[in-house]
Amino acid sequence: MKNFPLHKVVRLIEPGPVVMVSTLYHGRANLMTMGFHMMMQHDPPLIGAIVGPWDYSYDALHTTGECVIAIPGVDLIDKVVDIGNCSGNEVDKFAHFAFTRRKAKQVAPPLVDECLANIECRVADTQLVGQYDFFILEAVQAWINPERKEQRIFHHKGDGTFSVAGRTLNRQDRMIRWKQFQD
Amino acid sequence: MKNFPLHKVVRLIEPGPVVMVSTLYHGRANLMTMGFHMMMQHDPPLIGAIVGPWDYSYDALHTTGECVIAIPGVDLIDKVVDIGNCSGNEVDKFAHFAFTRRKAKQVAPPLVDECLANIECRVADTQLVGQYDFFILEAVQAWINPERKEQRIFHHKGDGTFSVAGRTLNRQDRMIRWKQFQD
Repeated sequence: MKNFPLHKVVRLIEPGPVVMVSTLYHGRANLMTMGFHMMMQHDPPLIGAIVGPWDYSYDALHTTGECVIAIPGVDLIDKVVDIGNCSGNEVDKFAHFAFTRRKAKQVAPPLVDECLANIECRVADTQLVGQYDFFILEAVQAWINPERKEQRIFHHKGDGTFSVAGRTLNRQDRMIRWKQFQD
Repeated sequence: MKNFPLHKVVRLIEPGPVVMVSTLYHGRANLMTMGFHMMMQHDPPLIGAIVGPWDYSYDALHTTGECVIAIPGVDLIDKVVDIGNCSGNEVDKFAHFAFTRRKAKQVAPPLVDECLANIECRVADTQLVGQYDFFILEAVQAWINPERKEQRIFHHKGDGTFSVAGRTLNRQDRMIRWKQFQD
């Protein structure tokens, strides 16, 4: 995997991909699937995410304050959906779904080697966790896998169907107010 | 436009489309383009959104507590990009970009008749506005335009390029934990 500049993490998150969240708690790594998240700030990159007590990862994230956001390619869709439909309380997800852990640089939870990108995060703000299960995460290191063949992300349509990223349209010439984000 | 059930607003927002925000302030309607937003809760539907003081719509949203989130089809991409690259301080965007206002039911700002969907919203929480420009909006009425020919949304890739929603993959049979969201 290749280091990816932090001020460009927006390019991984803003399109709205289905992601996985990797945590490590009491020496045990776990994965969950997440669809409710957003970019909040470019630099330092802040990511908002809903992780609730119904998620086995909630205690891990809340207690350790660390996670990795892993962005899967569409070739992994069945595994990613299944990971969102079982609990880390019952299943060792890395083992069962045959994902490869890779050591992160800044945080304890592992990267997911098979993914398009991995973003190492620390919890930056928990003000709205009690009321909305809303965590604000700061990205502290990011990695991409540019040699990976399948580079398309996928989006949850909220009802168990998913749309695959289609054609890219370039409108950089019209983005006159936001040129600094195109480098 | 056709009424759309509030508990299904997730299907409009979770895929991560580029949206427009319609506001009304001192009798003047305005539009902005927005890419930093997320679904926070299904029912009642809560939507998190970054609108900052650099946006002319910020004062309108903060003061009136109301907006409409309008979701454009990809056929409108050039207008939507241009709306994000000029200011309501200088341009009457509804007039200049030839969008048709349509009266909303629960809020004062107008719907955008040409869009795929419109979500009438009230500001529900401003706790993080001071620190992060983060508004929590509650959807109070939603509309879709099912007769519209182009139904594809588009996503900002964070650098002035956009991806068009591609093929839909159905994984409802694997979503055993979340069956209630498929009706």
